[in-house]
Amino acid sequence: MSVGFEPQAKAGLAEEIVRKMRDAMGAENLDALLPMSPDNLAYTAGTVPPSLRTVRLRLAACVIPYEGETEAVVVALEGPLMATQSRMAKTTTYREFAENAVEKVASSLKQRGLDGGRIGIEATYLPVAFHSTLQNCLPGAELVPADELLSEIRSLKSAREIEMIRDIGTAAQRIAEECAARIQSGATEQDLGGLIAEEYAAAGGDELTMLVVGSGERSAHPNAPPTDRVMVSGEIVRLDIIGTKHNYYSDVARTAVVGEPSREQQEIYDLLMRVHEQSLEALRPGVQTSDVYRIYKESMERAGLPPYHFVGHGLGVTLHEEPFINEFKSVQIRENMVLCIEPLTMLEDRFGMQIEDEVVITSDGYEPITRAGAMLQIDG
Amino acid sequence: MSVGFEPQAKAGLAEEIVRKMRDAMGAENLDALLPMSPDNLAYTAGTVPPSLRTVRLRLAACVIPYEGETEAVVVALEGPLMATQSRMAKTTTYREFAENAVEKVASSLKQRGLDGGRIGIEATYLPVAFHSTLQNCLPGAELVPADELLSEIRSLKSAREIEMIRDIGTAAQRIAEECAARIQSGATEQDLGGLIAEEYAAAGGDELTMLVVGSGERSAHPNAPPTDRVMVSGEIVRLDIIGTKHNYYSDVARTAVVGEPSREQQEIYDLLMRVHEQSLEALRPGVQTSDVYRIYKESMERAGLPPYHFVGHGLGVTLHEEPFINEFKSVQIRENMVLCIEPLTMLEDRFGMQIEDEVVITSDGYEPITRAGAMLQIDG
Repeated sequence: MSVGFEPQAKAGLAEEIVRKMRDAMGAENLDALLPMSPDNLAYTAGTVPPSLRTVRLRLAACVIPYEGETEAVVVALEGPLMATQSRMAKTTTYREFAENAVEKVASSLKQRGLDGGRIGIEATYLPVAFHSTLQNCLPGAELVPADELLSEIRSLKSAREIEMIRDIGTAAQRIAEECAARIQSGATEQDLGGLIAEEYAAAGGDELTMLVVGSGERSAHPNAPPTDRVMVSGEIVRLDIIGTKHNYYSDVARTAVVGEPSREQQEIYDLLMRVHEQSLEALRPGVQTSDVYRIYKESMERAGLPPYHFVGHGLGVTLHEEPFINEFKSVQIRENMVLCIEPLTMLEDRFGMQIEDEVVITSDGYEPITRAGAMLQIDG
Repeated sequence: MSVGFEPQAKAGLAEEIVRKMRDAMGAENLDALLPMSPDNLAYTAGTVPPSLRTVRLRLAACVIPYEGETEAVVVALEGPLMATQSRMAKTTTYREFAENAVEKVASSLKQRGLDGGRIGIEATYLPVAFHSTLQNCLPGAELVPADELLSEIRSLKSAREIEMIRDIGTAAQRIAEECAARIQSGATEQDLGGLIAEEYAAAGGDELTMLVVGSGERSAHPNAPPTDRVMVSGEIVRLDIIGTKHNYYSDVARTAVVGEPSREQQEIYDLLMRVHEQSLEALRPGVQTSDVYRIYKESMERAGLPPYHFVGHGLGVTLHEEPFINEFKSVQIRENMVLCIEPLTMLEDRFGMQIEDEVVITSDGYEPITRAGAMLQIDG
């Protein structure tokens, strides 16, 4: 349940991220950028006010001017925590009920002489009521959606970020393997989930945001949290270990079988592994994400498995981020992207299988962070 | 880690809540209401798509027409879960990347002939980009902020809601007492936090959204999560057990001392308990929340303690909801409100104390859900 970053990682990342933002702001002619979503606060400030998640009107913001001091704006009671943990140069607080976050942001921009400037906002996050308040406080400002600018910056990871993702990603892989080996048929999904949660915390994980433990027909349910369902011999158990450490996500999925797999189960797993390997082989800088998706789709069709609407996604301070590997939008794969590749197949009312690995894109291909092997086996 | 409601509670609550909404919509001349925030989805549909929390663009909505069938709109992969767990009459899904939630909502309103209607939205939640999309899809519709309408409905709890709040609230109180009794000086905040988390899960809690275990000078930090700090004899430990069961919150804070309290610690605790009792005594239907705050403030001043900017709040599917008991806004206290009363005092760099109880307002006063007594004692 630790929050924030190690002090060492803190200083270096701050400079690096603010520099990247200013480069992008220069190209877009922005005078300031206002990260406000939990993910962009985590990315920019290195920490998220804990109560933002539970009290949604306690909005917070970072103010990143093109020139000048960076600033975090938070509700007064989070001020001390933010001042200690945030990577911003200063922390400004607002009084709950009497003031709000965007009014404070507007004052800050006025003091900086930016009230007539071009201000980058998160249009897919900022609630319409607060957008109106901000515009009313700054009638001369041009509020420009900067969502894509932020997600593009975030898609290229620094060495420190890759290190943090590797740390919790490899832990998630190890935990899936060890916990499957420690459990037996007759145990419930929650027993297995409990073991995983314990090991995840022991690895320094903040929390398991969305743990999947789906057995039997539940293995074909997307996002199935562990229940009191008993796992019995012959069943498939699908695991997806989704959580964070120092704000960075792990997303590693494994397929297990209780006892010995049936011939059909083994065949489908082997087909899925082949699709997985063929999708991974397509990864290198310069390739379009739509081409990776096409290779995956053709591979699934050759295997006689129904293709899913996406096969992968970026990973960072959010679970799913740019680039998305699907058929709807295409971007070029670039060095230092961290991607999850996750072919899955769901046979409704029967079972579902998923294999998900994390990789980092190198100058001429990819390097695995995790690597799936044979189906995991639960004693049964 | 269970989600959703017991089947029994499900049917009754659905009717009751939709009826309340339609009464309020009639008074405000609304043709439809669109709950979309996680808290209003939990309240209306009885469940929140699990991935909404981790993937913020996977917006979901309830469509509550003044007349006609209720509907939930969710991303395709949450469709099966939502169809099983939601209290809405039907579930409609949208394809991620290719479509979005508000486009589907707009289609639904068109099909119902409501595209020229007055539509209640959550202006403090709906992101400005999605608000624009909704307005563009429905150029003839009037999008009206309905945030206050929703929070007013939610502030008056039904018998079933009170039962659910009582269930997890009394569990939180018991867990604070038992876990403090089971731990000793020399243990870390995380040891105590781990015990609490275990017991909370055993009581059927979904998760501890924001557990506070702050010892020594950390007891004066607001929202202090448990760390590896060792608790030693003579120190204050502040606990706040914030979590949910079936979407409804517990929020119970207790002050503990490791070993014997100093005279100063005991005196401050006793003063705080007196303030707590005087604040509670003010609670009855018809009283203004600002009057309760004034009584609290005067009581703190008499005690020589600095008053905080609020002393309480409503509790339900969110941690903090209407009515807020502070000096900035006043509403009348009404029967069936569930309130938390939480006087606290923070001596910076020394220690902080907090006492928080949950109560339900009755026809002529209040009934405690939890009730603090003497300071908890940790063996030290």
